[in-house]
Amino acid sequence: MEGINLRKLAEKLNLSISTVSKAFQDTYDINPQTRERVLALAKELNYQPNLYASSLRKQQSKTIAVVLPQIANNFFTQAIDGIESVAREQGFHVLFYLTHEDHEKEAAFIREIQNGRVDGILLSTSDNTHSDDHLLQLRSSKIPLVFFDRVYNSAADARVITNNKESSYEGTTHLIDQGCQKIGHLYYAQHLSISTARIDGYRDALADAGIPFRKELLLDCEGDSSKTVQSIRNFMQQQRPDGIFSSFEKLALHCYTACREINISIPGGMKVLSYSNLEIATLLDPPLTTITQPAYEIGREAALMLFKLISKELNEHKTLVIPSVLCKRRSTDKD
Amino acid sequence: MEGINLRKLAEKLNLSISTVSKAFQDTYDINPQTRERVLALAKELNYQPNLYASSLRKQQSKTIAVVLPQIANNFFTQAIDGIESVAREQGFHVLFYLTHEDHEKEAAFIREIQNGRVDGILLSTSDNTHSDDHLLQLRSSKIPLVFFDRVYNSAADARVITNNKESSYEGTTHLIDQGCQKIGHLYYAQHLSISTARIDGYRDALADAGIPFRKELLLDCEGDSSKTVQSIRNFMQQQRPDGIFSSFEKLALHCYTACREINISIPGGMKVLSYSNLEIATLLDPPLTTITQPAYEIGREAALMLFKLISKELNEHKTLVIPSVLCKRRSTDKD
Repeated sequence: MEGINLRKLAEKLNLSISTVSKAFQDTYDINPQTRERVLALAKELNYQPNLYASSLRKQQSKTIAVVLPQIANNFFTQAIDGIESVAREQGFHVLFYLTHEDHEKEAAFIREIQNGRVDGILLSTSDNTHSDDHLLQLRSSKIPLVFFDRVYNSAADARVITNNKESSYEGTTHLIDQGCQKIGHLYYAQHLSISTARIDGYRDALADAGIPFRKELLLDCEGDSSKTVQSIRNFMQQQRPDGIFSSFEKLALHCYTACREINISIPGGMKVLSYSNLEIATLLDPPLTTITQPAYEIGREAALMLFKLISKELNEHKTLVIPSVLCKRRSTDKD
Repeated sequence: MEGINLRKLAEKLNLSISTVSKAFQDTYDINPQTRERVLALAKELNYQPNLYASSLRKQQSKTIAVVLPQIANNFFTQAIDGIESVAREQGFHVLFYLTHEDHEKEAAFIREIQNGRVDGILLSTSDNTHSDDHLLQLRSSKIPLVFFDRVYNSAADARVITNNKESSYEGTTHLIDQGCQKIGHLYYAQHLSISTARIDGYRDALADAGIPFRKELLLDCEGDSSKTVQSIRNFMQQQRPDGIFSSFEKLALHCYTACREINISIPGGMKVLSYSNLEIATLLDPPLTTITQPAYEIGREAALMLFKLISKELNEHKTLVIPSVLCKRRSTDKD
């Protein structure tokens, strides 16, 4: 790269600087063969036009930001794979921001990337976010935003989500069909859109089966792992549920641990079902019945929607719902 | 953001444009109180200085790139967590590039990000990379590079790795101690630095225990999942190993699946041990004995080394080795 610049490249090719510059910008008033000659020599000499000067002229960063709560999570890694595949097809770069479930960090990131660094934002909200004030400015700016998976209930933005209420209804009904009458519902972050929708589906399924809803069967599992296992253990000993509906993968795994500690066998003593994108659910002891979200597809579709907003091919805010799939395994077997 | 620019901000504060500009650049010739006044009003008005114009002046992007083979992998997600934590401390942005184990993509990414988009690169190589030609130009440029986990054997670059040979020796010795005499070694991508080091450790442990090395007990598991399970099944039926040393987490999980399909019990019929960063290894049936890599620490230390190279606090290329830990569980129990 050292020593080579636009002027020297133009000299070597016997072309004008503006022609060489146009070749890099892929404008339409340049002969395709000339463009190829320029790019071939640039490649040979390992020359790349200065990105920032070029972005400044074009007011486009060719970059999107993905703001998400955590990365050590099967749902999000699969969603990122989907997002990345679309970004590459579009020739865009991808910046990642992990909020670690912290609203303040989320707000700071959103604020920071409104300065021309990115052309669009994909956001899955942190679980301690109660307000969307930090998005007000973004909405009035021209930077498109698409939510994926976790959204603000109040938000009128573009979004790609799964059918949380319906899939929760289906999962709860499956537990009832397998003989459960007293189903504990493990969740956290009640103000998260997905948590409330899943509780709604659970309530509706109970109602339709003629089983009274009992508030003491809802367990809020906020807090660190060791405390969660303990509170699940206490919950089981006090409430003696015959089935567990887990709203998040990690809660089901804590539930497995708690059952081992107090010698409750699954599915004999209790049946367990969970939202989960764990690829090795079949290798658990016992294999876990899951409601599997279309994580990769959610990522892909959210990115596709974002690029349509960036290119102005799409001008309205849409909601796309991709259904989850119930995968029945041994953890909910009848004895 | 609309309507607010450097000039208007300066007017509102009754300061010169150059003073306001200096506040954003954090130069030392500005009164700290003045700087705070500027930043406070900028925050209130949601104004951010134009990044690209600013980068062009400073020739610094405040961005690093992480180039890695895959993301749906427990080692890499934990390493990313470590990298991200350091980048945030330094106030840097993080670009991600997934090579999907493809050398051509890796080379294209490295080429593309040498144009001022990033101030440094963290790289873990793809498993089909045979040459490091694509790094020659990078090395002669001024963009620092640090390898993490997977490195080129030939490369003289900065790197943060684990003690692959020693930990493999320890794991193999554990299998021998548990009574194994015929240990299959599952691996792939033999030219990957980590694969060869792990085979070396395995060979040395056998030699020190007086067990002859047999080439037919090495199984190259290249290929897609369904084929891998099949080839592991065939390998077990033909070679009848009494222990399996798995060089990669996903191979151990395929091994569990294969054992179920042909009714081999673990650990009774065969003991299994694997390199793995699976947090729920204890919930598998049976709980898996693992060699656990310090993934988060490798990510953090690699990022810290990169920032020292960027700031020129470090001028030489160092190798940092962080040891892995053997976690003994039921999959290698004596009957």
